[in-house]
Amino acid sequence: MSTAAAVKAQDSRQRFIDAAIRLFTRHSFAGTSLQMIADEVGVTKAAVYHHFRTREELLAAVIEPLVTQMRESVEAAEAQRTAHARADTVLTGFVDLVVRNQDLIPVFAGDPGTVEMLRSQHNVEGLVERQVALLEALDPTPAGKVRAAVALAGIACSVGPSRLAADFDPETLRPLLLDAGRRTLGLRAPRRPQ
Amino acid sequence: MSTAAAVKAQDSRQRFIDAAIRLFTRHSFAGTSLQMIADEVGVTKAAVYHHFRTREELLAAVIEPLVTQMRESVEAAEAQRTAHARADTVLTGFVDLVVRNQDLIPVFAGDPGTVEMLRSQHNVEGLVERQVALLEALDPTPAGKVRAAVALAGIACSVGPSRLAADFDPETLRPLLLDAGRRTLGLRAPRRPQ
Repeated sequence: MSTAAAVKAQDSRQRFIDAAIRLFTRHSFAGTSLQMIADEVGVTKAAVYHHFRTREELLAAVIEPLVTQMRESVEAAEAQRTAHARADTVLTGFVDLVVRNQDLIPVFAGDPGTVEMLRSQHNVEGLVERQVALLEALDPTPAGKVRAAVALAGIACSVGPSRLAADFDPETLRPLLLDAGRRTLGLRAPRRPQ
Repeated sequence: MSTAAAVKAQDSRQRFIDAAIRLFTRHSFAGTSLQMIADEVGVTKAAVYHHFRTREELLAAVIEPLVTQMRESVEAAEAQRTAHARADTVLTGFVDLVVRNQDLIPVFAGDPGTVEMLRSQHNVEGLVERQVALLEALDPTPAGKVRAAVALAGIACSVGPSRLAADFDPETLRPLLLDAGRRTLGLRAPRRPQ
């Protein structure tokens, strides 16, 4: 493939990903077919198949940047020296991930179809488990486990086009979400601004 | 209709509702058709149509008991004398609602399809708004608004068959969720046990 052709293929791949995000947001993953994505882009279903054989492949491409960001956040957190710093680093990274991807988060946060699919991708499941473990380590009791789950779910599920993102711009929302998550977990804010 | 016939109609109506809950939980609302519900019960699609003309009608029947419980909780909270008591009453009621309906909550908590449909039912939207207002009244600043959203979303989205409900029985989970929600909101627990 020539460089120009490779760029063009990459462009149309990205157009399908962008269309998928719009449709998943509007109709959920389960409610979106490859035909709908073809219609949204204005091409035939065969053109979509050229890049993605299944909706699952397209979903995997959609979440790839999120998985990369989560991996970086979890690795940075695990490199910290104290449980408090590990928890605060991973919480801060998660808030940033959610705020940056606020259109997309509702697609995953509660839809049983996507959650099941994500769980079956072991690399994602492993990252989510490491993130949870870093927060649960603050208080390894049932109460601490529930607080970790409530903090993560609360941050992920409260954001979205028809929820907090409708009222706050990302820069305002980021520190407020971090504050709410820290309170849930009983984490004091670090002395130096981040 | 004779009494026996009325009881029978009520029974089969409930069988469709129970089947719908199982399928919505497994495949999401958008991923469940009336045909799938007919297959699950083992009847024809015409038999489903006899009770419910659309999936939306069936969803409305599924959530009816939740709407009733939320209305009672919001009204009991609004009758309290202080902002603290109003917030704590509505939070306690919401935790109970979520714990009692933990199979069903993931269907609504994040699926864009159902959330949009619920919003269009004005009585539900009004109740959700009143519930949020009772929590936001604790701290009418952007930070307070975000904490209220994180507390409610955290409680609703952390529960579910493959989440906290897999690790804790309802009686254990209820006070731990309430504790996490109170921390998020900065609500002190009342002195007397509830």
